[in-house]
Amino acid sequence: MFDVFGTCVDWRSGIIREGVELNRSRGLGVDWTAFADAWRGLYQPSMEQVRNGSRPWTTLDVLHRESLDKLVDRFGLECLGGNELDHLNRVWHRLEPWPDTVTGLKILKNNFVIAPLSNGNVALLVNMAKRTDLPWDAVLGAEVAGHYKPRPEAYLAAARLLGLEPDQCMMVAAHNNDLVAARNCGFRTAFVCRPHEHGPEQTTDLVAESNWDVIAASFVELADELKKKNINRSAISAFR
Amino acid sequence: MFDVFGTCVDWRSGIIREGVELNRSRGLGVDWTAFADAWRGLYQPSMEQVRNGSRPWTTLDVLHRESLDKLVDRFGLECLGGNELDHLNRVWHRLEPWPDTVTGLKILKNNFVIAPLSNGNVALLVNMAKRTDLPWDAVLGAEVAGHYKPRPEAYLAAARLLGLEPDQCMMVAAHNNDLVAARNCGFRTAFVCRPHEHGPEQTTDLVAESNWDVIAASFVELADELKKKNINRSAISAFR
Repeated sequence: MFDVFGTCVDWRSGIIREGVELNRSRGLGVDWTAFADAWRGLYQPSMEQVRNGSRPWTTLDVLHRESLDKLVDRFGLECLGGNELDHLNRVWHRLEPWPDTVTGLKILKNNFVIAPLSNGNVALLVNMAKRTDLPWDAVLGAEVAGHYKPRPEAYLAAARLLGLEPDQCMMVAAHNNDLVAARNCGFRTAFVCRPHEHGPEQTTDLVAESNWDVIAASFVELADELKKKNINRSAISAFR
Repeated sequence: MFDVFGTCVDWRSGIIREGVELNRSRGLGVDWTAFADAWRGLYQPSMEQVRNGSRPWTTLDVLHRESLDKLVDRFGLECLGGNELDHLNRVWHRLEPWPDTVTGLKILKNNFVIAPLSNGNVALLVNMAKRTDLPWDAVLGAEVAGHYKPRPEAYLAAARLLGLEPDQCMMVAAHNNDLVAARNCGFRTAFVCRPHEHGPEQTTDLVAESNWDVIAASFVELADELKKKNINRSAISAFR
C-alpha cells in the first residue's frame, strides 16, 4: 500500500507547472513555487479537526479548497472565478508520477496486490490513476476508512478491506512518520526516498530514520529488493 | 458500475467445476449442480438481517460461510475439514468471467471509469480481478457503503466516492431488480442479458423488463451501444 502525494506523484512540480500556465493565460505574476509550498503547508493542519473528531468526515477535495480560499488574497488570485478556482483545486487530481513510479508499480503488481493508502479521496485517486496509468488493484485510503493518516484506523481499515492481517501488508512511503504509524499498526514498511518532493533545498525525509524493512531509491529498486528477500504474495500467505 | 455475480462472472459453473474436482480428489458423490443452486439460494436471505438493521455489517465472505455450514449435512460434506470448507468458501474469489467480460471491460475502460458495484466484499473482488484480469479503476460496492444492494445507500455511496452525481453513473447488471434500484437512485441503466447464469433452464431475467437506457447481449455490445449513442466520459461531464 502506497502513500501517494510525494511518494508516487510530484505534487510540487505539478502545482507550479499549472500555475505558470495560469500566469501566462491570465496575465498573472504569481510566485507559484511559494504558492505550492504554502498550499501544502496548510495540508496537515486542515486535517487536524477531522482527526481529533471536532469536525465530521470531510474529503481532501473540500479541505484543499478551503486552504486554497485562504491563499487567494495573499497570492493575488482574486481575479480567478469560482470555476477557475475549482479547476485549480483539482490540480491534485492531475499530478504526474515520478519517473520510476508506473514502471515500478507494474512490476510490483505481478507479485502483489497494490493499492494507494492515501489521504486523498477516492475520486481524486481514481482520476489521477486514470490520467497517468497507475495500475492499482484497488483504491483504498482515508476516505473509505473515514479517518486520516496517521490515525491507526486508516491503516487497519485498508488491511481489513483486503482481507489481510497487518503483517501481510507493507506500507510504502517517502515519509518516515507515515511508516512509524504503519509499523505501530503491525505493517511491514518500505521507505522510498524522494529527495526533491519539497524542491532542491529539501531538508526532511532525506534518509531512513529507522530500520524499515526495505529502503530503496525508487519503486523499481523496491521491487528488486523484495525479490532478493524472496518476499512475494504466496510467501506472505504461507507466512500465516 | 457493474454487478459482478452473474453479470461479470459465471458463479454457477465455477462452483460446479471446483465441486466436481473435489468429488474426484476426495472420493465424494455430491450433486454440485444442486449444491450451487442451494448455496446461491441462501444468498439473498443471508443479507436480509443486515439490510433491515437487525444485524451489524457482516461481509459476504462470512455470510457465504454461514450458508455453506447450513448445507454440509444436506449434501454430505461432513468429511471436509474446516480448512477445506474455508477453501471451498473462497470459490467465490475464484469465479471465471463470461467470455466477453474482460474484452468488453477493456474497451469500456478507455472511455469510462469502471468499477464493480457488488455485494461481494472488497477482498473477494480484488482477488477475483487479480486472477482473471478484470481491469477495474476502483473496487467499490456494498462493503465500502456498509449497506447491501438493493439498499439505495449502496448505489449512492459508490457515486459519492467517485465524485459523481447519480445521473453521471450507469449501473450494468443482468438482473432487472438491480436496475430498478439503481434507477430509483438516479443512475442510468444497462441490462446485459446472461441467459445461462442459472443454467440451461433459466426462467428469470431473460428479457429487459423496463426501458433501460441500454440493452445488450454482451459487454462488447454495451460498449458499441454507448459509442453509437455518443455517451462517453467527457459527454457525461459536459452534461452537467
